[in-house]
Amino acid sequence: MQLLDPLFGSEAVCGIFSEAASLQRMLDFEAALARAGASVGLITVAAAEAIGAQCRVENLDTKALAFAAADAGNLAIPLVKQLTRRVELVSPDAAAYVHWGATSQDVIDTALVLQMRDALAEIERSAVELCHQLSELVLNHRGTPMVARTWMQQAVPTTFGVKAAGWLDAMLRHRERLAELRTRLFVLQFGGAAGTLAALGKRAQGVAEALARELKLGLPEIPWHTQRDRVAEAGTVLALCVGSLGKMARDIVLLTQTEVAEASEAGRPGKGGSSTMPHKQNPVGCAVILAAAERVPGLAATLLHAMTQEHERGLGNWHAEWETVPEVFRLTSGAMVRAVEVIRDLQVHPEAMRANLDKSNGLIFAEAVTMALAPGMGKPKAHQLLEEASRVTVSSNRHLRDVLSEMHEVQAAFDKASLGALFEAKDYLGSSEQFIESVLQRAHEADKKNTR
Amino acid sequence: MQLLDPLFGSEAVCGIFSEAASLQRMLDFEAALARAGASVGLITVAAAEAIGAQCRVENLDTKALAFAAADAGNLAIPLVKQLTRRVELVSPDAAAYVHWGATSQDVIDTALVLQMRDALAEIERSAVELCHQLSELVLNHRGTPMVARTWMQQAVPTTFGVKAAGWLDAMLRHRERLAELRTRLFVLQFGGAAGTLAALGKRAQGVAEALARELKLGLPEIPWHTQRDRVAEAGTVLALCVGSLGKMARDIVLLTQTEVAEASEAGRPGKGGSSTMPHKQNPVGCAVILAAAERVPGLAATLLHAMTQEHERGLGNWHAEWETVPEVFRLTSGAMVRAVEVIRDLQVHPEAMRANLDKSNGLIFAEAVTMALAPGMGKPKAHQLLEEASRVTVSSNRHLRDVLSEMHEVQAAFDKASLGALFEAKDYLGSSEQFIESVLQRAHEADKKNTR
Amino acid sequence: MQLLDPLFGSEAVCGIFSEAASLQRMLDFEAALARAGASVGLITVAAAEAIGAQCRVENLDTKALAFAAADAGNLAIPLVKQLTRRVELVSPDAAAYVHWGATSQDVIDTALVLQMRDALAEIERSAVELCHQLSELVLNHRGTPMVARTWMQQAVPTTFGVKAAGWLDAMLRHRERLAELRTRLFVLQFGGAAGTLAALGKRAQGVAEALARELKLGLPEIPWHTQRDRVAEAGTVLALCVGSLGKMARDIVLLTQTEVAEASEAGRPGKGGSSTMPHKQNPVGCAVILAAAERVPGLAATLLHAMTQEHERGLGNWHAEWETVPEVFRLTSGAMVRAVEVIRDLQVHPEAMRANLDKSNGLIFAEAVTMALAPGMGKPKAHQLLEEASRVTVSSNRHLRDVLSEMHEVQAAFDKASLGALFEAKDYLGSSEQFIESVLQRAHEADKKNTR
Amino acid sequence: MQLLDPLFGSEAVCGIFSEAASLQRMLDFEAALARAGASVGLITVAAAEAIGAQCRVENLDTKALAFAAADAGNLAIPLVKQLTRRVELVSPDAAAYVHWGATSQDVIDTALVLQMRDALAEIERSAVELCHQLSELVLNHRGTPMVARTWMQQAVPTTFGVKAAGWLDAMLRHRERLAELRTRLFVLQFGGAAGTLAALGKRAQGVAEALARELKLGLPEIPWHTQRDRVAEAGTVLALCVGSLGKMARDIVLLTQTEVAEASEAGRPGKGGSSTMPHKQNPVGCAVILAAAERVPGLAATLLHAMTQEHERGLGNWHAEWETVPEVFRLTSGAMVRAVEVIRDLQVHPEAMRANLDKSNGLIFAEAVTMALAPGMGKPKAHQLLEEASRVTVSSNRHLRDVLSEMHEVQAAFDKASLGALFEAKDYLGSSEQFIESVLQRAHEADKKNTR
Repeated sequence: MQLLDPLFGSEAVCGIFSEAASLQRMLDFEAALARAGASVGLITVAAAEAIGAQCRVENLDTKALAFAAADAGNLAIPLVKQLTRRVELVSPDAAAYVHWGATSQDVIDTALVLQMRDALAEIERSAVELCHQLSELVLNHRGTPMVARTWMQQAVPTTFGVKAAGWLDAMLRHRERLAELRTRLFVLQFGGAAGTLAALGKRAQGVAEALARELKLGLPEIPWHTQRDRVAEAGTVLALCVGSLGKMARDIVLLTQTEVAEASEAGRPGKGGSSTMPHKQNPVGCAVILAAAERVPGLAATLLHAMTQEHERGLGNWHAEWETVPEVFRLTSGAMVRAVEVIRDLQVHPEAMRANLDKSNGLIFAEAVTMALAPGMGKPKAHQLLEEASRVTVSSNRHLRDVLSEMHEVQAAFDKASLGALFEAKDYLGSSEQFIESVLQRAHEADKKNTR
Repeated sequence: MQLLDPLFGSEAVCGIFSEAASLQRMLDFEAALARAGASVGLITVAAAEAIGAQCRVENLDTKALAFAAADAGNLAIPLVKQLTRRVELVSPDAAAYVHWGATSQDVIDTALVLQMRDALAEIERSAVELCHQLSELVLNHRGTPMVARTWMQQAVPTTFGVKAAGWLDAMLRHRERLAELRTRLFVLQFGGAAGTLAALGKRAQGVAEALARELKLGLPEIPWHTQRDRVAEAGTVLALCVGSLGKMARDIVLLTQTEVAEASEAGRPGKGGSSTMPHKQNPVGCAVILAAAERVPGLAATLLHAMTQEHERGLGNWHAEWETVPEVFRLTSGAMVRAVEVIRDLQVHPEAMRANLDKSNGLIFAEAVTMALAPGMGKPKAHQLLEEASRVTVSSNRHLRDVLSEMHEVQAAFDKASLGALFEAKDYLGSSEQFIESVLQRAHEADKKNTR
Repeated sequence: MQLLDPLFGSEAVCGIFSEAASLQRMLDFEAALARAGASVGLITVAAAEAIGAQCRVENLDTKALAFAAADAGNLAIPLVKQLTRRVELVSPDAAAYVHWGATSQDVIDTALVLQMRDALAEIERSAVELCHQLSELVLNHRGTPMVARTWMQQAVPTTFGVKAAGWLDAMLRHRERLAELRTRLFVLQFGGAAGTLAALGKRAQGVAEALARELKLGLPEIPWHTQRDRVAEAGTVLALCVGSLGKMARDIVLLTQTEVAEASEAGRPGKGGSSTMPHKQNPVGCAVILAAAERVPGLAATLLHAMTQEHERGLGNWHAEWETVPEVFRLTSGAMVRAVEVIRDLQVHPEAMRANLDKSNGLIFAEAVTMALAPGMGKPKAHQLLEEASRVTVSSNRHLRDVLSEMHEVQAAFDKASLGALFEAKDYLGSSEQFIESVLQRAHEADKKNTR
Repeated sequence: MQLLDPLFGSEAVCGIFSEAASLQRMLDFEAALARAGASVGLITVAAAEAIGAQCRVENLDTKALAFAAADAGNLAIPLVKQLTRRVELVSPDAAAYVHWGATSQDVIDTALVLQMRDALAEIERSAVELCHQLSELVLNHRGTPMVARTWMQQAVPTTFGVKAAGWLDAMLRHRERLAELRTRLFVLQFGGAAGTLAALGKRAQGVAEALARELKLGLPEIPWHTQRDRVAEAGTVLALCVGSLGKMARDIVLLTQTEVAEASEAGRPGKGGSSTMPHKQNPVGCAVILAAAERVPGLAATLLHAMTQEHERGLGNWHAEWETVPEVFRLTSGAMVRAVEVIRDLQVHPEAMRANLDKSNGLIFAEAVTMALAPGMGKPKAHQLLEEASRVTVSSNRHLRDVLSEMHEVQAAFDKASLGALFEAKDYLGSSEQFIESVLQRAHEADKKNTR
């Protein structure tokens, strides 16, 4: 475990990409390859079993592996050497068949695909959970009025339900994207030295099919050693996901500011406290999410850049993926797990929302009044009139309603009660309800689709 | 037209994102909004027509617009003002209804969606054309042997058909991605001041539906002013596409090196010549593609980063999209159009490929010999023996076959003719044919799906 | 002018990188090259004059140039052709000497250096002006108490002067960096076909020296066609600068939030208004700065990435610089000019700052009380006591002072007046004054250094 | 040690940023703070010693620390808690003074500065060593002719000395940049809760000065908690450095291609071998450098992006630095160490360079002939004539000299011997010698400056 894993990553995904798990996945490939070879008669079942029996990470000298990789240029070469030596001790015959027909990149890429499959399952699980939490939040606050803010300025009323529905809506699209990714991504890498499987001769297809079956992976049309769109796509789909989580966290931290105080991350002893300021309750969960949103785009760009790999094996650009892909998964999973926590425990303060709705001296209802005046006097004139009244409101620090009530164009249009009624947030929510309904409906359908 | 548009962009896509076309798309939104309003009785048909009649880019003072945008913070505000003034001259009544119920971002985002729809159609058209060109290239060279290179070193034999099939395979996946993108991306943006459509009251849904119909766009569950995953996804899908084009161009420029000379970009007078070196024939098309592959990842990262937009309207991050999205489309389209040209006119030199197959003194057949010896002596021993023979080959500058023929382990295994036969590229191509077949089959299916 | 130039760029720098100015700079190189040739007797003075006379951008057919560049792969080749044809009409003899000894990249890079020199002068001018504005702001508000915020939560008191001094401090470092950049960046590019100046034979050094003199550029040790650290450094130094401007803008927009209201961007008719909400006053200047801070890092990364250029001329990666470098300068200059405006016109609201200091019910003085109690009871115990009191303060919505006054440990330590005195912001400002003094002193020294 | 540290990092720098070393650096800060407090009489010398005695990483429960950091939001809070508890066991009095006056970020940032100082010393040491290796390479090959390549096509002759001098020239500028960075970067971070040092009252400056002295760091004008230009600058300066290393590695791998074979990375048993192809000798060192050049730009962009930190403590963006900065140092140091190795052991093959000079049938001398003909017939005509002759050369596969010798314009200009003499690489090297001289001279001066 890295020191900052509990802060930035999820336990599950950090585990999947741990050194031991990564090496084990490479050994899983070698074991499956041996079994596949046996299944087509390329090697004996006994040899396959002898190889398989040694394919345990505990058997490796990982420190020696690390140093050998510095010379070899990748981990697979010394791993295969160590494995071969182990098998030799038990069965010199079997040793001859270790890694038969495969190249280093076959091992490394397939192991990565297996890890990405496990990690994506975790991330999708969190995404589903997050959608559930968000749906509940939307339901609970569909009628909680608050102020909408554009350019970080109070604009017009909305509800907290609408805001949360926006977060949910994006997350539903990410679930779609994650699903679409699967068929392209969960495929075997198996091409031999340079992508022709020549070393396996006529048995190549048989071995490839058996190997894919063993690992429960799809068999691609052709090896993809230097066609990295699959890997880069995984990075970008996760980056999109993190971007939306970052938007949600950005909204929440803005709401948790002392002066706004409309929401807060739940605290608990030891969480979010300050080393010097005993009263502080820091939004740690959101900070973690925002840190991911700050870092993942650059990592995704690296994966996109690294796609221009040379001929049949990339030189440097392939290497650039090795630590970048796990990092993207780690940060995404960490952000996702935190998001579930933040939303689950979010403390919403409707009374503060209500208080902030009053903070602009009625200016957030300027549009409502404009639209009410527009049918009578035309929108341009109404707009102009409200601009004037808004200016007076600001300079005199009076309520817009009072300023308006003294203007004769307004008097001509409304009596006092009608004017006052225009300043009710709950009556100026437009299609909020319908929007929420549509999003919740889609969430419901996503779940039905999921369980099928 | 920008000075470097013909070099870096495609004519079609540069046109779609030209200043005039961009402003016209915003005016198209305003005209459609007026018609939508009329269709639900919000405004009169006459007013809608009066507004629509003025929605022509020729009516705008674009210079004034540009300066006003610097103060307003976006183009839509001064555009609506100019439009309103124009309509006022003709019909003061109609002027009152310009932009009714919409916010600046509704105009700007929807116009962008319309442009992206047109631009993606162009890019997909090019992608289809590129797949056709690549299929033909694969077919023509399925039997053209060449050397496969890993780490930029000669490795084992392959065919040019396999290499080109790899390029085609990736492009087929990009067509899938582009198709999946459509339903998410081609939707209306319409939320009014802060996403509730409150200004339109009960007629909001009717106007929204009519507006979507007018513009032939989908109606999203909820406005998405600060949920930017749709836009960022467009950027990343194009970036993936450019990455694969870059890989193809990288391969080609490596092949066109004077010392390799296995392929060349077709020249024509004025194309690829040097200002000082009359003999030069520069791969200009590939340079353009590689430039795109160098630039688009950073732009995609910007779009991903910009997703954390505040509350109901982004501040700075939304603005960051405005020039970035068109740039991504421009560079992608330019790279795509060049790729079609490069592949269509590519000059392939099979004789040079053949000559380069001979350049390693037989070393590229080391694996073939290893695999032939392995059944007899075990792979580790075979591998070791070939390492030794390879060293001697290099140090003595003799042919591997000759070195091997003097080793008694080899003599024991093969007679001279059998040994010689191991050095035939065409007999060491493994599953090349099947891989090519599978990819071409998928290309065929993609076309059938496309035309349905 | 581009439609969004007035919004995102500065007039001066957009002018410097306009198409006409860019082409003129290339022609300036050709004219200077001719004069340099004449000065060492390589060509006649008459020929140099004939060439120089044609080196005016008005003489070019820029549209033809744009299309020719698409084939040629750069603008210099067709530009030299057009220029040569023009010279031929006047003096066929002189035409023979156009571009003598230079390569396309010599023209393009040197023109770029000349533009960067002009643009950096503009940016430095703005930086100096910004430092003056900031110094004044610091002076005016060195004693204006406000709340410091960590994790976007109220923390302890500070002054607005300290905050602004932080902005100023960074900007002073950027002026240093910009100055250090100059000697490395303002150098000639002149290497001929592949960096040896072979075509000029023995006169090469003479021409190079004369050319550098003509253009008032340094003469580098060796041509740097594919050593791009100079160009990339310019990009990163500007990116650092934009990052600090972004930090300043981020602070300001947080202060301008309706609920905080401690500062606001000055409005004027047409500036920052909303299309639908007449009362809105949007921080347009800060949005422009933040948009730059969002975009420039990705562009800088592109320049860094593009450094791995091949052999003696980059392929694609050099091309990737052409639009990226001007974009970085444009966005930086735009952000800088806006920053000057924003700071010059910034409306600071000390009364709101004061009001916000009271908003936490005294919690922002928790540290002050802790430190006052610590000498007596030890810091851990004091910290614990304040944590407890803070909790009670929050749950009971009472003032921390009142909660504390009831705790006997506190009563034991302070009388009521002494306790009350701990809640004075102006008495808990620590070294604020000294910090401000040091920064202003450095600002003063920077100006003295500048004028020397 | 991470599994891929020996491959991608340097031992020294991986050690400096190891978990243990990082935590120790934070403890070093706490110990120094205690001593500084004692030096101004804030705490007793005995307390300072008691604290200092516990400041050993072995005393920490790092696993507990990691989990606590997930709640606390950073490592410093739980570290201070653990330290305080340890001190309490020994001296409850002293425990009260642990971390006195400091905030978490003071600890974390100062520890980072100390690590960066150590790591930069390592990187500069490597840079100096690399310059020495490069100087020797330049000297050894100042007269080794080879072909210069533009657009990856053979262009004109140059020498390997000139190419290596270009690499050296860039590295000398990086040494300058690294030196300039020092005074800005090696400063204390010490501001207390929110940058005013209020908790230390009148003794603040005394403590700060003593603390800076203790740690041998500069004392900045003002704390820089959210002014991150220093940190981001370190990232960009290293990124520039890596970019130039990447350019060098790119050149070398292009030279090591089987078909070019002008250079090769030295092999040794276990280095660069292939798992399937016994004859392969992969340029592992260059791959590592290129991987760094692929990754660091995105990481630098993250640091640039993360500069817009909020108010007095960043939220998420500061967190984004924590793993990014060490990664940049690790990759840079790894690339640097590999570069030293690659250059030190580089095998240069002058005979292959010579052979490749002949590969174009004389076309690389086209410019030389053009320039020789130009004085007589004018450059345009000469250029045109050579274009024609080049075409014939290519289509007829004859030598350019032979083609030219049959053209009467050429016969008129030269006799056979004079024509032949134009095809000597060593006579068409222009200012190569002077360029090399200038660069070596600067390298010499850099060393003198260094030792002063």
